[in-house]
Amino acid sequence: MAASTASRLWLPRPTASSPCPRPPPRLSRFSPLRAAKLESVLSIGTHVIPHPRKVETGGEDAFFVGDDGGGVFAIADGVSGWAEKNVNPALFSRELMANSSTFLKDEEVNHDPQVLLMKAHAATSSTGSATAIIAMLEKTGTLKIASVGDCGLKVIRKGQVMFSTCPQEHYFDCPYQLSSEAIGQTYKDALVCTVHLMEGDIIVSGSDGFFDNIFDQEILAVISESPGIDESAKALAELARKHSVDVRFDSPYSMEARSRGFDVPWWKKLLGAKLTGGKMDDITVIVAQVNIVVIPDDEGAIVEREKGAEKVTVAATATASAEQKG
Amino acid sequence: MAASTASRLWLPRPTASSPCPRPPPRLSRFSPLRAAKLESVLSIGTHVIPHPRKVETGGEDAFFVGDDGGGVFAIADGVSGWAEKNVNPALFSRELMANSSTFLKDEEVNHDPQVLLMKAHAATSSTGSATAIIAMLEKTGTLKIASVGDCGLKVIRKGQVMFSTCPQEHYFDCPYQLSSEAIGQTYKDALVCTVHLMEGDIIVSGSDGFFDNIFDQEILAVISESPGIDESAKALAELARKHSVDVRFDSPYSMEARSRGFDVPWWKKLLGAKLTGGKMDDITVIVAQVNIVVIPDDEGAIVEREKGAEKVTVAATATASAEQKG
Repeated sequence: MAASTASRLWLPRPTASSPCPRPPPRLSRFSPLRAAKLESVLSIGTHVIPHPRKVETGGEDAFFVGDDGGGVFAIADGVSGWAEKNVNPALFSRELMANSSTFLKDEEVNHDPQVLLMKAHAATSSTGSATAIIAMLEKTGTLKIASVGDCGLKVIRKGQVMFSTCPQEHYFDCPYQLSSEAIGQTYKDALVCTVHLMEGDIIVSGSDGFFDNIFDQEILAVISESPGIDESAKALAELARKHSVDVRFDSPYSMEARSRGFDVPWWKKLLGAKLTGGKMDDITVIVAQVNIVVIPDDEGAIVEREKGAEKVTVAATATASAEQKG
Repeated sequence: MAASTASRLWLPRPTASSPCPRPPPRLSRFSPLRAAKLESVLSIGTHVIPHPRKVETGGEDAFFVGDDGGGVFAIADGVSGWAEKNVNPALFSRELMANSSTFLKDEEVNHDPQVLLMKAHAATSSTGSATAIIAMLEKTGTLKIASVGDCGLKVIRKGQVMFSTCPQEHYFDCPYQLSSEAIGQTYKDALVCTVHLMEGDIIVSGSDGFFDNIFDQEILAVISESPGIDESAKALAELARKHSVDVRFDSPYSMEARSRGFDVPWWKKLLGAKLTGGKMDDITVIVAQVNIVVIPDDEGAIVEREKGAEKVTVAATATASAEQKG
């Protein structure tokens, strides 16, 4: 039996607080804001570091960021095995993301990320395949997610991971994927879920090259130390990149490999060695923060949040600042 | 770098298939079923094993199962620290679940598990506190979840965990909790999310006494070997119970404890010992399977699924078969 003596009884802690989540803070009946609207919007930072051997071509990850609704982002990770068939794996993922961006305001899509995946996939004519995740924030604070494969998304609230997607795979290192071939997966196979977000929540999303090389505790530490989302995205990508080329780092990837029965040869095992190391891959990181903005009503009511509201970001916009580093 | 040679390129596997998820299978224009409805409903099995020292009193977990919408279940885990204040920790969790059941069809609740948490908590007059999770399936296949603390819920599809909630805690072993005291958490602090389910999906939910003592791979193995949901719930609870009293088992709980800096005394460490063992606790397990039922239309159309649909469970109902074992 484990030896923790920590009580499960909650004790007051100075950091504990109970900000109002959903629905948005009720406004005073006599507030000048009575007719104004509060809307959730994302500030978005991005950072991409290609696989060390793919720096010249920019790698096979692709992404897009948009300001539809409360903010949208998507990542696609081209399946590298296509290179063995003389197909550039980047073409499919890039076209998929370009098509996702194109169909974003399509009437049929109607802010549904699963339908967006369907339309973008159907319009992609390149040969290849890719994992993909699309996340859309509604102005009410609901984040809608559709994901095929092993791109990931986590939500951080008050310094802890409070939501995380799970990867989908056929077997170890072979994820579900949207494909040019009929045998691949479709939007119907997507994980489709929503999560209600609050002001200050941080979303961290990335390709498997990111999540295979970094632990949750490291993500939390980097987020807490970074001054903003752009810095967070850059620092997270660089830490994952550092781990990815470190043969001694016991990464999430190597731990998972061992748990699936992969290991070093028996004679190395006898010498005490074990399978370790990061996973060299393209690394894409998107960090987004949920802000509440006040939308003045048509009659020009005074814009002021009720007492107790801590922060109002009036003009947060979704911007991408992708960089590529060797 | 990890040594896996597995390609990320998807290869055809006999087990791969792409059944239609959401929306429900499109019916033929000329099908006799044209006017009939397909609805998602849960078949629910439960099993409870109290803490070894609490067998006589039944432990401090509580749960309920209902047939509202496509099916509802909830678990509350009374915080045991209250016993030190001469308060029976079971009273709060049991009253919270009784109130949740009472308010299930309340108009204000309107099938929203977060609102149900709010009303049930407000109506609970016992002293104490509890973690709690409520899950409601809509007939369309959307599972709505509200959770405060470290009760958990996972969704298994095609032999893998495709969705999982994350625990909320103040610090190790001190979860978020609904309380009789103003200082505790409220419905506003809940993780609120939805996930779209498909026919055949299995939901596994439980108190932390379950998830602290069993790994995902074990859950998957037990589910795949069990003939039905009742047998699954029983086998899962019994495996977790076995681990919980095994001081040598390196449980999720002991691994988490070590990662937070807890360990055996330094002199034991020098002898090669490490902190291991399960966590003795009340163990509640709920296993639910998503079935699609055909609802005949008002004109009495012939009830028959279109060709290709594999299974129709016409009269799946939510039933609880709780057992208490020492």
